[in-house]
This record gives sequence, C-alpha cells and structure tokens, in this order.
Amino acid sequence: MTPGPARFAQAALVGDSDASYDNLALAEDAGEMLGRLGITLITGGRGGVMEAASRGAARAGGLTVGITPGSQAAAANEWCDVVIPTGLGHARNVLTALAGDFIVAVGGGAGTLSELCFAWIHGRPIYVLQGSGGWSDRLAGGVLDHRDSSVIVNCDNIEALEREVVRFCGAKGLGIREPG
Amino acid sequence: MTPGPARFAQAALVGDSDASYDNLALAEDAGEMLGRLGITLITGGRGGVMEAASRGAARAGGLTVGITPGSQAAAANEWCDVVIPTGLGHARNVLTALAGDFIVAVGGGAGTLSELCFAWIHGRPIYVLQGSGGWSDRLAGGVLDHRDSSVIVNCDNIEALEREVVRFCGAKGLGIREPG
Amino acid sequence: MTPGPARFAQAALVGDSDASYDNLALAEDAGEMLGRLGITLITGGRGGVMEAASRGAARAGGLTVGITPGSQAAAANEWCDVVIPTGLGHARNVLTALAGDFIVAVGGGAGTLSELCFAWIHGRPIYVLQGSGGWSDRLAGGVLDHRDSSVIVNCDNIEALEREVVRFCGAKGLGIREPG
Amino acid sequence: MTPGPARFAQAALVGDSDASYDNLALAEDAGEMLGRLGITLITGGRGGVMEAASRGAARAGGLTVGITPGSQAAAANEWCDVVIPTGLGHARNVLTALAGDFIVAVGGGAGTLSELCFAWIHGRPIYVLQGSGGWSDRLAGGVLDHRDSSVIVNCDNIEALEREVVRFCGAKGLGIREPG
Repeated sequence: MTPGPARFAQAALVGDSDASYDNLALAEDAGEMLGRLGITLITGGRGGVMEAASRGAARAGGLTVGITPGSQAAAANEWCDVVIPTGLGHARNVLTALAGDFIVAVGGGAGTLSELCFAWIHGRPIYVLQGSGGWSDRLAGGVLDHRDSSVIVNCDNIEALEREVVRFCGAKGLGIREPG
Repeated sequence: MTPGPARFAQAALVGDSDASYDNLALAEDAGEMLGRLGITLITGGRGGVMEAASRGAARAGGLTVGITPGSQAAAANEWCDVVIPTGLGHARNVLTALAGDFIVAVGGGAGTLSELCFAWIHGRPIYVLQGSGGWSDRLAGGVLDHRDSSVIVNCDNIEALEREVVRFCGAKGLGIREPG
Repeated sequence: MTPGPARFAQAALVGDSDASYDNLALAEDAGEMLGRLGITLITGGRGGVMEAASRGAARAGGLTVGITPGSQAAAANEWCDVVIPTGLGHARNVLTALAGDFIVAVGGGAGTLSELCFAWIHGRPIYVLQGSGGWSDRLAGGVLDHRDSSVIVNCDNIEALEREVVRFCGAKGLGIREPG
Repeated sequence: MTPGPARFAQAALVGDSDASYDNLALAEDAGEMLGRLGITLITGGRGGVMEAASRGAARAGGLTVGITPGSQAAAANEWCDVVIPTGLGHARNVLTALAGDFIVAVGGGAGTLSELCFAWIHGRPIYVLQGSGGWSDRLAGGVLDHRDSSVIVNCDNIEALEREVVRFCGAKGLGIREPG
C-alpha cells in the first residue's frame, strides 16, 4: 500500500468575534497568506476575526475549518469548508487551540487568551500580530509560564509572520505550498 | 459581498478500530461512494473502519477529517486531510457524531453505539449497513427511544445507502456532486 | 502526615428526565438505599429519575452530586448537595458515567444508553433494575460488546441491587456504611 | 413537598500542582477558611496547591471535590471527598472554573490562567492572593477583557479574602456557615 498524501500544515487563528476594522483587515491578510501557502486554516467558526481570516484563506484557495460552540453547523460563518459543531460551548476553545500545528492571534480577550493557554500547555508555537491590541500585545515576546524555553513570538506584520510560519513548517516537515 | 461557496455535505462514518476484512471492505466502499459525491467524510481518525473509509474517500477525491481522542495530530491515520486532535479521550465520540449532517455505521461496539446515541439525540439521520454485525445489525430498522418518529435506516448495500444519502441531501439542500 | 479519610464509594444513577410514576418510585428507593449505605450519589442533576434518586438519597442522609449540561448551577434540581455545571450539553453524559465507581440504570432512552456505553468502555460495572423498561430491560443480562467478560447485571428489585452493590464495594475496598 | 436543604456555596480554588512552600501554606489556609464557612471546595484534584487547599478544607470539616483530568478516581489526592474523573485532559479546566460560584487563585501558570479565563467568561468573581506570584500577581486589580465592569480582586491576605467571600455570598444568597 502506498502511503497517503502528505497532510498540509494546520494553523489555528484566534481573535475576537467583535473586532476593529484594522484587526479584521489584519486577520483577512493573515488568512490569505496562510491559504496561499496551502495551510489549512482552523478558527472558532464564528464572526469577526474568525470570519475575516476564513474569507481571506478561501480567497487564496485555502481549506478552512470552523470549530463552533453550538451543535448546529448552520451557525458557522459562510467561509468554512468544514464545520465541526461541538455543542461544548466555550470549552471548544480547547479544540481550536489543539487543532493548529501552531497558533496565530490577532488582538483578543479572555476567550482568545484561553486558547493561547491551551496552545502553550500543549507546546504549540504562538505568534501574535504586533499592534493588534488585547492579549496579543500584552503577551508579545513574553511567556505564559516557565514550563519550557519558548516565548510568544511577536510579528511586526504579515510578512514577518509568513517568514516564521515557513521556517517552522520547514523545520517540522509539515506540508506547505512553496511560497511564491 | 458575494456569499461564500455552498458548503458540501458532511457524513460521519463510524465503526470499530478492530474490524473484520468484510467490514473493512464495506467501509472502504462506503467512503469511496461518499467521496465520489463530494461529501466530506468525518471519522474518529483511528484505524480499522475509520481508516478504511478514509482511504476509500481519499481515492475518490473526497475530503477527509479525523477527530481523534489524543492531543497529537500524528496519531491519526494517514488518509485524513484534516486532523482535529481533541485530547478528550472517548468524549470525542460526541464530536464525531455531531460533525455529520448524517451518520453511517458499519458494525460497531460500545464506542460506535455512543456515537449513534449522540447522533440520535441531535436529530441526525442514522444509516446502518446490513450484515455488518454489531450494533448496526442490532439496531437496523429500530429506534433508540421515542423522541421522534424517525427510525434507524437499514441499507442492504452501498447502492441503497447512496440512494438514501442523495435523497436526504437533496431534501435538505446540502451540497453534493451530481451522482454520475 | 496521616492519610485522609477513606473516600466513600460513588454511584452514578441514570435514567430519563421524563419518567413514569413507577420508575420515579424505583429511582427514589434506589437513591435511598445508596444514601443509607453512605454511597455518594452522582446524577445528571436534572428532573425525573435524577431528581427522584437524589431526593431518596438526601432523605437517607447521603451526599448527592448533580453534573448538569448547562453552565449555571441554578438549573440543577434542589436535592443536589454539590452541582457541577459543565456547559458541555449532552457531552456531560460522559462525565456522569465516569464519576460512578459503578452505574445503576432505571429505564432510559438514548441519553441513558450513551451513559451506559461510556461506563462500559471505562470498565465500570452496570446494574439495571428489571421491569423499568427502556434500555435497562433491553440490555439486562447482556453485553455492549465483547471487550471483556462482564455482563450488564439484571437486578430483580432494590434488595437484589443492594446485595450486588455491597458485594462489589467490599471486593474493591470502596468505603460504605455497614448495611443495617 | 418541602424544598430541599439550601445548597452551600461552592468555591473553585486554582493554582499550580508544583508550588512553593509559601503558596502551599497559603492554599491550605485558604482551604481551611472556606471549609470553616461551610463552603464546598472545588479543585482540580491533583497535587500542590490543589492538595494543600483540600487538606485545609477537610481539616476544617468542609466538603471537598476534585475534578481530575484522567478517567480514574484513584489519581485524585486523598483529601477529596468526591472525585469527578473526567478523562478530558486539560479541558477539565473549564469544569473546575465553572463549578465555583466564585474562584480563588494562588500563584498560577498557564493552566490556572485558562481557568481564570473561563471563570471570567462565565461571570464568576475572581479573587487572587497578593504576593503569591504567577498570574495571580500579574492580574491583581486588572481585567481579562472589557466585557463587564468587574475587576480581578486583589486580597492582601486570608482575612481580606474571607471578608470578600462573606460579602459576595451574602449578596447572592448563597449558603455559608456563620463566620465565628
């Protein structure tokens, strides 16, 4: 039996459902970059940052997955190719975080912070977009505790994020499309 | 803004990780049929029936998702295009069941039965493949309780299952590829 | 440091929120017997069988715990000494099942059956009360699959259940009060 | 039917499984104070801060509940009167947070922070013990986001915490024993 096709990398992108225009634009650009690299985009499947990122990824031909708090797929935003309705309420934040080989944050309140905690606990690298406010800015360059030597990586802009993502996926052997 | 592309239907396919040769072949054929219809295949991401169905779907060009009990994506079988590692142990059965617009069972023990329970509670239609043994045969044509008037639909073979699936997706307006 | 006090045994009692008068009486008697033995009673914290059992246990001086689907403790029935509001919806069934050193069923539909599945998967002994209908009667004396040699134990009445419980707790060294 | 007895208040106490001597002493004193007030103590059921708090509460005659990540009750510390083994891994943090009418933190890393996030999202008041380091000190007097007007309350010592707890329970009508 020949092996299955190499799976593409997966990115969790997290942020507020109620976000500023600037953060929506940033999320959409981040999603587009990830989609262009062929990286599967995981979000919480709702509005705001989650929807903007999914729209960006979809436009670039990327695959998008929404892991939603309710039990009905219809509550997801329209840019999710796959919907995982959990019925778990806010506990679905654990799943969003775990489903990324790495996690990207845009701004973010307590829900986003809980996702960063679970990503940290499970050893997933965390990238935050500088200037996006909320917990992204509060945590940039810092740590959540001292369990290992990694830090939350501050990215000046989408280009800096892309360099980090390409480097990480290369080092881990995770499948991406060649950046153009 | 133009709407996103219509999402394809999603099928949860459930059954044992330790299955007979006949049930593996049946699962692979079911997966292939679902993949050919463009229906996204959801499984528990492990071996046995889950792996066989994913392999069949992948061969037909379908999209496959594995929702796994552990917290590391690497434990999924190689035919999963997307892996949702939950870290929830057997509680991930709730998610597998909910992620299907409908659910298909091949044989099955207590884990499969728990998935059918959650599908039933949430009103997802249940199809079982006749002759596959386990809970599929024990429940064929019956009910799990009296909360509504639906029954667990017994399908004689893959062709009968395909007719049921095409009819259900049509009635619900769920996106599938035109059956050839 | 001297060791903590021996923990009392825990019983999960499961059944419908919408139950017949006979099953409510049976659940209350079962709860009273468990409370008299000093066994902590775990239920899903809602009405019907869950409430009746908790009322019986409370009357006998037992400790009662309700593990509820919603996120607010106020939705539990009034006989729960401790409320664990999960916000997990029906997935809380996994927790109810696991929280018992053993599990007792009175009647039961699909929700109850899912709890029996998780108890079975995790190797918890299952006792059903004969004549209570639903899945209790359908499964009495049978198995959920062939993973081990145990069966679902059919109990003719509360006295038979008490004998089984006392024997099991004795064999496992689980703390109970001396039956009078 | 006369109503059931008024349920006692429930406190979630969170902190590291690997804690300093000072924080263990602080947790034990907090547990003892809560137990003396008749408040049911909820913890994650493991070692460190969780065990110390449970030991303190048990010594004062309080009821203690451990909500553990694994699926076997035996992994809980010996001071838990009730064990809720979840099998959910770190996702059990959601449950620990929700099970408290309010939450108390001693020091704390990423796991503790995730619990504070879920408490915050669900509107549970948060008290931190000053000088205990970790996220307790980083968040004292601050907010996790701007969803409401509450702040994370900084308590100088156990006496200050007791005053806050007695005031909160009184205002909410939650049952406690009269402070001596």
